[in-house]
Amino acid sequence: MKEAGIRCVRMGEFAWSKMEPEIGTIHLDFFAGAISQLHSHGIDTIFCTPTPTPPIWMSDGHPERMHVNEKGERMSHGARQHCCINHPFFRKRARIIAEAIARQIGPLPGLIGWQIDNELKSSLSECMCATCKSLWTQWLQARYLHIDALNEAWGTEIWSQKYQNFQQVPQPVQTTLPHNASLSTAYRQFNREQVAAFIREQAEILRRHSTLPITHNTNRIFHVDNEQNFQSLDFASFDAYPESEHFRQMMLDYDLWRNAIPRRPFWVMETSPYSAGNLRAHTKTHPSGYLCAEAVAAYASGAEGFSFWLWRQQRTGFEIAHGAVLSSWGEPTVGYREIQRIKEAAEELEPLLIDSEPAQAEAAITYSDRARAFFMTESMEQLDYLALMSHWYNIVLDSGIHRDLLFENADLTGYRLLLSPFLPYLSPAYMEKAKDFVRSGGIWLAGPLTGWRTKEHTAHTDAFLGDLESFAGVKTLFAYPMSRADIRGEAFQIQATLGLTGCEWIPSHPETVVQGRYSHASGHAFLTEKPEGKGRIVLLGHMPQGAEGDRMLGSILRYYAAEAGIRMRWDVSAGTIVAPRHSKGKRIWIIVNMDGKGGTVTLPKAGTDLLCQEPVPQGPLKIDRYGYKAIGWESPPLRNPSAGKPSAGWMNGV
Amino acid sequence: MKEAGIRCVRMGEFAWSKMEPEIGTIHLDFFAGAISQLHSHGIDTIFCTPTPTPPIWMSDGHPERMHVNEKGERMSHGARQHCCINHPFFRKRARIIAEAIARQIGPLPGLIGWQIDNELKSSLSECMCATCKSLWTQWLQARYLHIDALNEAWGTEIWSQKYQNFQQVPQPVQTTLPHNASLSTAYRQFNREQVAAFIREQAEILRRHSTLPITHNTNRIFHVDNEQNFQSLDFASFDAYPESEHFRQMMLDYDLWRNAIPRRPFWVMETSPYSAGNLRAHTKTHPSGYLCAEAVAAYASGAEGFSFWLWRQQRTGFEIAHGAVLSSWGEPTVGYREIQRIKEAAEELEPLLIDSEPAQAEAAITYSDRARAFFMTESMEQLDYLALMSHWYNIVLDSGIHRDLLFENADLTGYRLLLSPFLPYLSPAYMEKAKDFVRSGGIWLAGPLTGWRTKEHTAHTDAFLGDLESFAGVKTLFAYPMSRADIRGEAFQIQATLGLTGCEWIPSHPETVVQGRYSHASGHAFLTEKPEGKGRIVLLGHMPQGAEGDRMLGSILRYYAAEAGIRMRWDVSAGTIVAPRHSKGKRIWIIVNMDGKGGTVTLPKAGTDLLCQEPVPQGPLKIDRYGYKAIGWESPPLRNPSAGKPSAGWMNGV
Amino acid sequence: MKEAGIRCVRMGEFAWSKMEPEIGTIHLDFFAGAISQLHSHGIDTIFCTPTPTPPIWMSDGHPERMHVNEKGERMSHGARQHCCINHPFFRKRARIIAEAIARQIGPLPGLIGWQIDNELKSSLSECMCATCKSLWTQWLQARYLHIDALNEAWGTEIWSQKYQNFQQVPQPVQTTLPHNASLSTAYRQFNREQVAAFIREQAEILRRHSTLPITHNTNRIFHVDNEQNFQSLDFASFDAYPESEHFRQMMLDYDLWRNAIPRRPFWVMETSPYSAGNLRAHTKTHPSGYLCAEAVAAYASGAEGFSFWLWRQQRTGFEIAHGAVLSSWGEPTVGYREIQRIKEAAEELEPLLIDSEPAQAEAAITYSDRARAFFMTESMEQLDYLALMSHWYNIVLDSGIHRDLLFENADLTGYRLLLSPFLPYLSPAYMEKAKDFVRSGGIWLAGPLTGWRTKEHTAHTDAFLGDLESFAGVKTLFAYPMSRADIRGEAFQIQATLGLTGCEWIPSHPETVVQGRYSHASGHAFLTEKPEGKGRIVLLGHMPQGAEGDRMLGSILRYYAAEAGIRMRWDVSAGTIVAPRHSKGKRIWIIVNMDGKGGTVTLPKAGTDLLCQEPVPQGPLKIDRYGYKAIGWESPPLRNPSAGKPSAGWMNGV
Repeated sequence: MKEAGIRCVRMGEFAWSKMEPEIGTIHLDFFAGAISQLHSHGIDTIFCTPTPTPPIWMSDGHPERMHVNEKGERMSHGARQHCCINHPFFRKRARIIAEAIARQIGPLPGLIGWQIDNELKSSLSECMCATCKSLWTQWLQARYLHIDALNEAWGTEIWSQKYQNFQQVPQPVQTTLPHNASLSTAYRQFNREQVAAFIREQAEILRRHSTLPITHNTNRIFHVDNEQNFQSLDFASFDAYPESEHFRQMMLDYDLWRNAIPRRPFWVMETSPYSAGNLRAHTKTHPSGYLCAEAVAAYASGAEGFSFWLWRQQRTGFEIAHGAVLSSWGEPTVGYREIQRIKEAAEELEPLLIDSEPAQAEAAITYSDRARAFFMTESMEQLDYLALMSHWYNIVLDSGIHRDLLFENADLTGYRLLLSPFLPYLSPAYMEKAKDFVRSGGIWLAGPLTGWRTKEHTAHTDAFLGDLESFAGVKTLFAYPMSRADIRGEAFQIQATLGLTGCEWIPSHPETVVQGRYSHASGHAFLTEKPEGKGRIVLLGHMPQGAEGDRMLGSILRYYAAEAGIRMRWDVSAGTIVAPRHSKGKRIWIIVNMDGKGGTVTLPKAGTDLLCQEPVPQGPLKIDRYGYKAIGWESPPLRNPSAGKPSAGWMNGV
Repeated sequence: MKEAGIRCVRMGEFAWSKMEPEIGTIHLDFFAGAISQLHSHGIDTIFCTPTPTPPIWMSDGHPERMHVNEKGERMSHGARQHCCINHPFFRKRARIIAEAIARQIGPLPGLIGWQIDNELKSSLSECMCATCKSLWTQWLQARYLHIDALNEAWGTEIWSQKYQNFQQVPQPVQTTLPHNASLSTAYRQFNREQVAAFIREQAEILRRHSTLPITHNTNRIFHVDNEQNFQSLDFASFDAYPESEHFRQMMLDYDLWRNAIPRRPFWVMETSPYSAGNLRAHTKTHPSGYLCAEAVAAYASGAEGFSFWLWRQQRTGFEIAHGAVLSSWGEPTVGYREIQRIKEAAEELEPLLIDSEPAQAEAAITYSDRARAFFMTESMEQLDYLALMSHWYNIVLDSGIHRDLLFENADLTGYRLLLSPFLPYLSPAYMEKAKDFVRSGGIWLAGPLTGWRTKEHTAHTDAFLGDLESFAGVKTLFAYPMSRADIRGEAFQIQATLGLTGCEWIPSHPETVVQGRYSHASGHAFLTEKPEGKGRIVLLGHMPQGAEGDRMLGSILRYYAAEAGIRMRWDVSAGTIVAPRHSKGKRIWIIVNMDGKGGTVTLPKAGTDLLCQEPVPQGPLKIDRYGYKAIGWESPPLRNPSAGKPSAGWMNGV
Repeated sequence: MKEAGIRCVRMGEFAWSKMEPEIGTIHLDFFAGAISQLHSHGIDTIFCTPTPTPPIWMSDGHPERMHVNEKGERMSHGARQHCCINHPFFRKRARIIAEAIARQIGPLPGLIGWQIDNELKSSLSECMCATCKSLWTQWLQARYLHIDALNEAWGTEIWSQKYQNFQQVPQPVQTTLPHNASLSTAYRQFNREQVAAFIREQAEILRRHSTLPITHNTNRIFHVDNEQNFQSLDFASFDAYPESEHFRQMMLDYDLWRNAIPRRPFWVMETSPYSAGNLRAHTKTHPSGYLCAEAVAAYASGAEGFSFWLWRQQRTGFEIAHGAVLSSWGEPTVGYREIQRIKEAAEELEPLLIDSEPAQAEAAITYSDRARAFFMTESMEQLDYLALMSHWYNIVLDSGIHRDLLFENADLTGYRLLLSPFLPYLSPAYMEKAKDFVRSGGIWLAGPLTGWRTKEHTAHTDAFLGDLESFAGVKTLFAYPMSRADIRGEAFQIQATLGLTGCEWIPSHPETVVQGRYSHASGHAFLTEKPEGKGRIVLLGHMPQGAEGDRMLGSILRYYAAEAGIRMRWDVSAGTIVAPRHSKGKRIWIIVNMDGKGGTVTLPKAGTDLLCQEPVPQGPLKIDRYGYKAIGWESPPLRNPSAGKPSAGWMNGV
């Protein structure tokens, strides 16, 4: 491990039966011994609670404790996450094991943090068991107080679905057509709240005995509300295994998780040294060099740790074929040499990383698991929130605009441009914050598919976009599906086919300016802006399609970035990324080629190559295949607050 | 509504819980009030029984009342049609609510008709619940009297499936391979008969208190036998939402439902002003102009009403995104202006429509839900009856041959050409009627895939096509799958690849003439004709494939149309349709461009443009994009009886 | 039948309810009468036990006797194989009916053999019923004795799956992710052993009353272990219905089943005269001539019988549309004339066939249903053992190398080249045999994906390939997925992209020679050879991809065939096959064109056309479309033992 540059080991997440082989008989000495041994060699430990893998004594003879999926299929023992985390007995045993761990492992030297569970709701979504049914009834009761309120909120007169009491409201199990939108979305929210409550409960137990920071290793595709989950956690971490050509996915993760918990560096808690694999599928092996670029980009983007899963290939089980640092026969894998490169790179960059911190972006993109739940209920044209957001993100990234992805409730201080695509429901809190942002000088670009649904996943009855319309100074004349109907429009001299459900607008305010118009006779607007206070509200009605659509959206984004006075925008070739950092009196760019083709970035003025301390001239700078550079400029301290820096240098882990 | 030209409102179909919020407490005043209010503004009402959406008091705590699908999955409350319509308790409550409605709503001024239920069996097929199991046993008992008769009829010695008593005969639930063909088809027929019985029962209740005409809004894709259903109904209506490029689907519907109940105009009971949509999918928005063309073609083809679903977008539920006349926020949608065009067109055409009636076609195509049930059981190469019939219909349409689609038991008086494709079972009654038709001078073209199965969905054991062979003067030597085997043939100088299961025939009668031969050495026939009485029986053995196959089939159809002396055949460009009508002493063509490209029709002689009362010369007449014209000629009254004309002019509805 | 050349009739397999209409009332006279009648016309009978189709009295009211699939769905009566063959009551009734048949039918003149059941596990895989659960527990107990041994063997510490007793070990029913690999593979083995035990039990009953040979008609795709099944049977037979362009599948079958039971000719027990079909699908009709080529190739390859399914089309049931000798109306089908051609060909070839026997090949390919079970558990990239083996086989076939496919435990005496692709687990017995084979002069080519898993479906922990590595004189440095990663290599001057999980090797022994290297910088080996004793062990690390990959593999195979001194290699055009036979003092080639394009084979020296007894010169010999020739050379007796010859000439059957 030392040779590979491993400074931290994560353990325990799947070991409940090792810890508690018989119910009530808990042995943790094996783990305590391992932690001490690692510590004696200078290697730290993150310890995990083992709740994703309940032992056989939890499942055996107790089908009522098992997860039930939306088809009514009850899980059997085997695999993981097979128990319902809401079952009282599961919960009780989870508290007991967490408490035992916190007591015995918590005080051990070498322990630097905790992880709760592992990838909650990674391979399943909402549970439909009887425990959940009863909690659902309680949740509805608490939320609506009286059944009439629920009936009114959900419009259950449609299709005579009206309920007489809360017990009657079904879980969204199988019926002849999809359930009422309000019910489906509410059940998702209910379920996600239960997950957050489980995390909170476990975290409270750990905190009784330990002051070390706590995380949970998540991923955007899991069926959780990450914003809620991280409210009771101390630092963000995630697991991701994209293939190398999907490096933009990894950048999106960096830009998101850096901001999940402000001013705390995040961890890449799991990624593969070369390929993820299991009995049924595997990912493409990374080309040599990619892993190091991925790690450098992570550290540059605000990561404190970059951890490989797993240390040694498992000799058995479902993930027998997964890439690892050591092979099943105990020797370095094809990924090992890549990890050694990271060690070298991390050592080279460490002084710089400790001495600086990621610069807060000037452009913020709102990222919302609640929005994702709405799209799961209302996918219309197989719309997938993750794919929509990735598409949008990639256009921002390739436009060279530095960006932070922020949860709905994040603070907007210091930002100049706020992007809110694909946010069906605009909460009053979000609206207030965004309006303040505009009034104090920001540009807020809302849409497409933003603001058209209420909190209860119903349609507005006053205006297509509810309150947003009057604020944006537009009136929606028509809203209808545009996909495949070959409806075109023009904005900033670019014509494109317009997709998704779109809006035909007319200005409702004298100051509203139309920036994009439909090409058909009406000439109505699909892109408008209106000054408000010191700033502007921009409304975008649809998603432009295809290559020309991407070009149109890029133009729109660059135009408003310029109008917003965004300085963190770079002229960089696609496939190469710039991670801006700052320290006292210095601006730093860490530039990484991620696509393996090499790239170029234009330096706005002469600076210093911080790795070799040599001057670099203004103008184009070449970056090698999967290479990186760190360029610095003397500069007055930026106004922007820090996004957090690692306390202890880089932390490669397993 | 008046501004939009809405003359009729349909209501009540999904409102059971509004009508009967608690079991036995029925309130209809809300609806009575609405009907009166509409009536006071000159708007009529069609009232629906609310049985597709049983209230929660029907489902709650009563899983035994719910629909069970063929995988054994029991539906939950939510969506619609979740109860089994055969459950005695459901049936009892359905009778009670229908009776209450008939009593209170029936006498109201403004009421012009009834609709029973809504889209029966639209989102589910056969029910497998215990109630249905017991009815199935009774049905079998009544049909076969003794189990030996069933065993013999179904050939249950195959695979040792032999039953000892009727109770043992399973519903076609999950087993290792598909069930016996006879059982599967019988269960479909049983189920469809139950649906028809439910309609009949409800209709009888309404008739006790009302003399107004009764309909049910159906669609070809539902799991019902429309011919049976309409036997106890007074007028035909259907719901359809094809995208504009599938306008031929709509024409097929017009040509079918016009004839479902002879001499009674039909209704397009639901179509979208621009797009159908729900949480999971939506159709492409119509191009501007299409909706009006669709409506004019409907009225010209024999519709009395053309109704939009829905008036105002629902603010909640599964169909929240569906196109409507008014938006969820209460203003005209993009479809509204299209509806206004219809109003103008309908006003322009109204005198003409009231004064004339659709001309009966000379070519009849038999359309059979029983045949469809056979294809569901025996799909062979993913054959779908609807797709096969559409393909066939489109070739007839594009050949310019005017046509009526007739149910199996329809009267053939007045027709000259009878087309019977894809009719696996020829009932004795159908055979008798078709033979009479031939003997009195008609040309009957049977096939492909016609006559090869018995009533019990078994194979004939005397000849491949049973009785049909001797009547057609052929002997089937071989019948085998031709698809993908690149077997070719020639007819009327056109060569094409022959598809589906085909037949190699030789004449068995001296007068049999071979009109199409296989290209391989045998030279056997796939297309034959034989004189019989004053007419001819033509047998077609397969479906020709691809563009050249369509050309071959078009030639065959045009040839026999000419031979049959069909006069209603037009030289019209594809995408434009002619709807022939007649009044006292006048022949009328209403010509509509449906594909948005404009078109041409050749006038056989000079006539009069009935809309501007100007003469039009013989020869080509241009029709604008989505435009229409009405041309009239003085003419002796046609021998053909009327296909019905609207009593009250056009009826746009919601 | 006589006219069609039918010499044997198979009956009884689906007739349990005919034989035993009421439980305990067994009547076999109908069948005895049929056998006698056939015999009186010189037609023999193979009689089948009727267990695939349990009568209604077995299923009615007894859901616990029914098969349950891996989704927990319980089969209903209908179709076939719906009962669990492990249920004690089924087993008891199966013994009783088999005994009754053996007693009454066994002694009848005309009976020549038995078939047990029909296509066991053809339309279903492992059963998950309660009977199987209890047998599974017993099986585990017997195999592991103590639960600790199971936990250790399966590595159940992974994901905390550890069991406390055997009762807790689940069947691999639905859970959140696939089950542990060891459990899944063990359950498959358990299930296959039960099938073999059922066959053994039934065979023992028949043998108590009859000495006639017993078979079971299998197919490679069924969920069984054919090697185990045939251990208690007397001759091999299989059912297959490939379309004509998949004739290589049929050749693979001939080369496999010829060797399933050494020195006993095999039967093609079912194939279609022209097309297989059922209610849901059908195969393409054979081109005229193909069937005869298929039959001649079968007889030439060692078949004793070539049987058509079925004699007369069923008039009812699931397979109503299946091709047959006679149509449902009792007349010759399009296949009949093809069958007559076979009769002629068989009569022409009969003296030759009786006088000679298939020559044992010099190249052996190991074919293993156990390997297939491993790939079912661990499919990684949708790998399918049958497809992988077919691909490999086709390259061997098209390289003109004559081959035998052998089960794992087959005797290797007389072979020169042993090919072991896709054999994840190398048993000690197999390893020993292969090592002996090498030491005594053979060349053993192992891989790809061979030897990388243990008996328990886990990874080796000493070396990637376990013991195989030291024997092969290589060390695996790296093993990782190569697919889609565009990793290339070169061997024998051919470059190709390398696919599947591959290995980077370095020699670990001074005599190891690298024959194929990766193109990337490491230059590690993917193809090595090492002398050992008088022979060589060759290791292939991956599957080369695409057309160039096939070329590379063809070169590798031809190189080692030459090195192994293989004489049975022919220069024959693709699509034409050579079946070598020998008799006293004569070598014979039967050459058949299988692709309908005609072909050429190069005769190594002048020989005799055995059908017309004329000399044929050395050099190219043309074969007509679907034609065949038999060429003979005087030759000393070959060392190779006989692969069996038919006792009674050709046996076309139904």
